[in-house]
Amino acid sequence: MSAREPLRVALLGAGVVGGAVARHLTQRSGDMAARVGAPLEIVGIAVRRAGRDRSELGVDASLFTTDAEELVTRADLVVEVIGGIEPARSLILRAMAHGASVVTANKALLAEDGPRLYAAAAQHGVDLYYEAAVAGAIPLLRPLRESLAGDEVRKVLGIVNGTTNYVLDKMDTTGAGFQDAVEQAQALGYAEADPTADVEGFDAAAKAAILASLAFHTRVSGSDVYREGITEVSAADVAAAREMDCVVKLLAICERNDGGVSVRVHPAMIPRSHPLAGVREAFNAVFVEADAAGQLMFYGRGAGGEPTASAVLGDLVAVARHRVGGGLGPGESSYADLPILSMGDAQTRYHVSLDVADRPGVLSKVAAAFAAHDVSIETVRQQLVAADDGVTAAGGDGSARANLIIVTHTASDAALSATVESLRSLDVVRGVNSVMRVEGF
Amino acid sequence: MSAREPLRVALLGAGVVGGAVARHLTQRSGDMAARVGAPLEIVGIAVRRAGRDRSELGVDASLFTTDAEELVTRADLVVEVIGGIEPARSLILRAMAHGASVVTANKALLAEDGPRLYAAAAQHGVDLYYEAAVAGAIPLLRPLRESLAGDEVRKVLGIVNGTTNYVLDKMDTTGAGFQDAVEQAQALGYAEADPTADVEGFDAAAKAAILASLAFHTRVSGSDVYREGITEVSAADVAAAREMDCVVKLLAICERNDGGVSVRVHPAMIPRSHPLAGVREAFNAVFVEADAAGQLMFYGRGAGGEPTASAVLGDLVAVARHRVGGGLGPGESSYADLPILSMGDAQTRYHVSLDVADRPGVLSKVAAAFAAHDVSIETVRQQLVAADDGVTAAGGDGSARANLIIVTHTASDAALSATVESLRSLDVVRGVNSVMRVEGF
Repeated sequence: MSAREPLRVALLGAGVVGGAVARHLTQRSGDMAARVGAPLEIVGIAVRRAGRDRSELGVDASLFTTDAEELVTRADLVVEVIGGIEPARSLILRAMAHGASVVTANKALLAEDGPRLYAAAAQHGVDLYYEAAVAGAIPLLRPLRESLAGDEVRKVLGIVNGTTNYVLDKMDTTGAGFQDAVEQAQALGYAEADPTADVEGFDAAAKAAILASLAFHTRVSGSDVYREGITEVSAADVAAAREMDCVVKLLAICERNDGGVSVRVHPAMIPRSHPLAGVREAFNAVFVEADAAGQLMFYGRGAGGEPTASAVLGDLVAVARHRVGGGLGPGESSYADLPILSMGDAQTRYHVSLDVADRPGVLSKVAAAFAAHDVSIETVRQQLVAADDGVTAAGGDGSARANLIIVTHTASDAALSATVESLRSLDVVRGVNSVMRVEGF
Repeated sequence: MSAREPLRVALLGAGVVGGAVARHLTQRSGDMAARVGAPLEIVGIAVRRAGRDRSELGVDASLFTTDAEELVTRADLVVEVIGGIEPARSLILRAMAHGASVVTANKALLAEDGPRLYAAAAQHGVDLYYEAAVAGAIPLLRPLRESLAGDEVRKVLGIVNGTTNYVLDKMDTTGAGFQDAVEQAQALGYAEADPTADVEGFDAAAKAAILASLAFHTRVSGSDVYREGITEVSAADVAAAREMDCVVKLLAICERNDGGVSVRVHPAMIPRSHPLAGVREAFNAVFVEADAAGQLMFYGRGAGGEPTASAVLGDLVAVARHRVGGGLGPGESSYADLPILSMGDAQTRYHVSLDVADRPGVLSKVAAAFAAHDVSIETVRQQLVAADDGVTAAGGDGSARANLIIVTHTASDAALSATVESLRSLDVVRGVNSVMRVEGF
C-alpha cells in the first residue's frame, strides 16, 4: 500500500482542534496510511500569525504559512478548522474549485451557507464532509445519510449544546437558579465568560439547521430556526418539571410533516423515562424517530479538541479513501489478526456476597484470601443476617451469621475466580451467595 | 436519473424481514430510485416452499422461486434474510462469485465464518454489508468503520439482546425472579417458547464476535467468545445490585489492550448513572470508548421486522449507489426544497402554571379559554398557595389564591400561545407563572 503516492493534506487552522488533528496525523502516520491505502502528507498549515512557537505539535516549522489562498491550491484534501464565515467560505470554495475534497468542522458556515457549499462540491465532483460540525464526536452524518437512507426520518430531538445541558443538569440536581448554575459552569470551563451564544440558543440553532438538512435532505439555514434560550428558565420551572417526573432540556427539534419541515430550539420538559433525560452534564445526544427503524439515539461528547478531532479524522480517512478508490472504512482485505485473550486474562471487577460466621478474625481471613491472589478490595460491607423470628440467625456451631459483601478493584478474571475458589474452602466462610462482575465504573 | 438501467435485486427469504424489505421496495420504488440514482427492480424472491399465498407483500406472484442458486446468478444486488449457516453461506459466495454485491442480516453466519465472506467480497471486488446483523436498526457498521476510522476504539460494552434486557429490566423494576420474568417476556412476545439462545447468551455471543471484528478490525468468531447467560441471576443478585446503586445487565464486552482482544458475554452490575443503565425493556444499546472521541453510545431497537428492514434497506441503498458510482448517501446535488414551517405551525404541548383566585367557576373559565382556541387539556392540577405564615395566602380581594397547573394535548404553537394570551386577560387569572413546552411523550 505504501507504494501509493501520498495524498497532500492542507490544514487551515492550528487551534485546539487543528493542533489535535496535526498531532494525530504526525504521530499515527503509519496507521493512517494503512487505513486510507496511501500515506497522508501534511503539505502546509495555514495560521493567522507566523512566528509563534508551535513546536508542541511535532510538525516541521517550515509547514506553517500565512498564505492560505496559495496553500489550498496545492492540496488533495483540505481540513478547515478556523471557524467563522470568512475567510473560511472563500477558502473552501477555492479549494473545491482546485479539485480538493474538504473536511470542515464549521457549524456557523454550514448553517449560514451550507447548500451553496454542497452545490459547489457536487459541481466540482469533490467530497465535502462535516461530521464534526453537528455534534462533535457523535457520528450523525453517516447514520442519518447512509444507515437510514432506506428509511424515512420523522423527527429529531437533539441536546446539541453542552454548556446549556450542564447548566440545566445542575439546576435539576442541586436546585440552583440559572445564574448560579452558569457561574458554576464558568468556573469549571463548561461556559465561556460571555455565555450568550450558548445560553441564548444561537449555537444550538446553527446545529439544528445542519441536523434538519441532514435528516430531511432539504435546505435549512440558521435563520430559518425558531430560537429561545434558557435564560428565562427558573428554579421554579425546574421544580415544576420535577413534579411532573420531567426534566428541562434545551432541545433542537426537527420535524417533518406533510406541510413541510419545522425546525426549532427551545427549552422543553421531557419525561425522566425518556432516553434524552439521562443525558447528564456537558454530554450531547440526538434522538431520532424513523418510520421503520423506530427510536434511535446517538450519545457522546459534542465539543472539545480531541472529540472534534476524532470526527475530523474519520471524515479525512473517508474522503482520502474516496481518492484512493476504496470502499467502506478500513480495507476489507487488510484484516488484523490480533490474539484473542482467554477469559482468565480479562480485566474486570467482582461483587462477592459471602455467608460468614460473625466472629473475630473473619474479615482478616477473608481479606488474606484476596491478598494472596493479588486482588485489591475496594469496599467491604458486613450485615448481620436476621432469622425469620427476628433474632440474629445462628450457624450450626452457635455463632452468629453475617453477610459479607466485597467489591474488588480491577484484576484478572483468573485471579478473581481463584480467589473465590479459595474463599469457598475457608472455615469461616459458610457459603458463597453470589459472584457477579462489575463493569462501567 | 430514471434514464439509468434498473439494478436487479434478488431477495433470499420472504419472512418477517424479507417481507418488510419487499414491501418497502415496491411501495416506495420512486423514492428509492431517487436515493440510489437508478431504479431498484426485484428480479426474484427465493422461498423454501412455492405456492403459499404471499399476496400481502404486493409483489407479482411470478417473482417467487424455489431456485435460489439460479436466482443469485442474475442479480446485481442480493439481499440474504433466510438466516442460518447453510444454504445462506453457499448462496452468498455464489452471488459474489457472479459479481453481485450482498446485503445480509445473518449474524450466525457472520459470527461463524465472517472473515471468509469478507475475503470473498474483496476478491470479487463487490460489497458485503451487514448492518442488520449486529443490533437491528442501530447504526453501528458505519459509525465504527467510517466515523471512527481516524480514532482508536478501546472498549465496547453492548446490550445486544432484547429478550434478556427485558427479563433483567422486569427483575429490576418488579423484584420478580428469573423464571417469572421470562414467563412475562414470553407472554408479551419478547421471548420465544424455547428462550435458550437468548437467556444462555448464544445470540449475544454471535453479535459480540461481529462487534469486535468491526471495532478492532480483526478476526473474531463466535467460538472465541467467553459466554455466560442470565439463568443464574437471582432476585437476590438484582437486589444486591440495587443496594450498590447498580443494575444488572447482560453485556457483550469487547476490549482491546496491548496483549490482544478480549471478547466476552456475561451478566454484570453497572452503575445506575451509566448511560447503559437507562436502556429499558427490549431496547439495545452499544457503548463505545475511543481514544479521542471519548464515550459514545448508540441506542435503538435491536430486533423486529421493520427495524431490521430499515438497516437492510440502508445497506441496499449504499451498495446500489456504489454500483451507480455515487458517493455519500443521497446525492449532494439532489436537494429537496421542503417548505420551512413557522413556529406557529409547530405541533407541541404546553405546561402552563397559573396564579388564580380560588373561587368557584375559575376552572371553567380557564378551561373555556383553552377550548376557544381548540386546545385540548390533558391534566389539570390545583394546589392552594401557602403564605409565609403558613395560612392560605389571599389575594387583594380577600379570596384565597391557588396555583393551577395545566398540561395540554398536542396543538399548534400558535393556538397554544394565543390561549396563553387570552388567559392573561381573564379576571380570575392573577398571573401566568410559567409556560413551557413539553416534548418526548
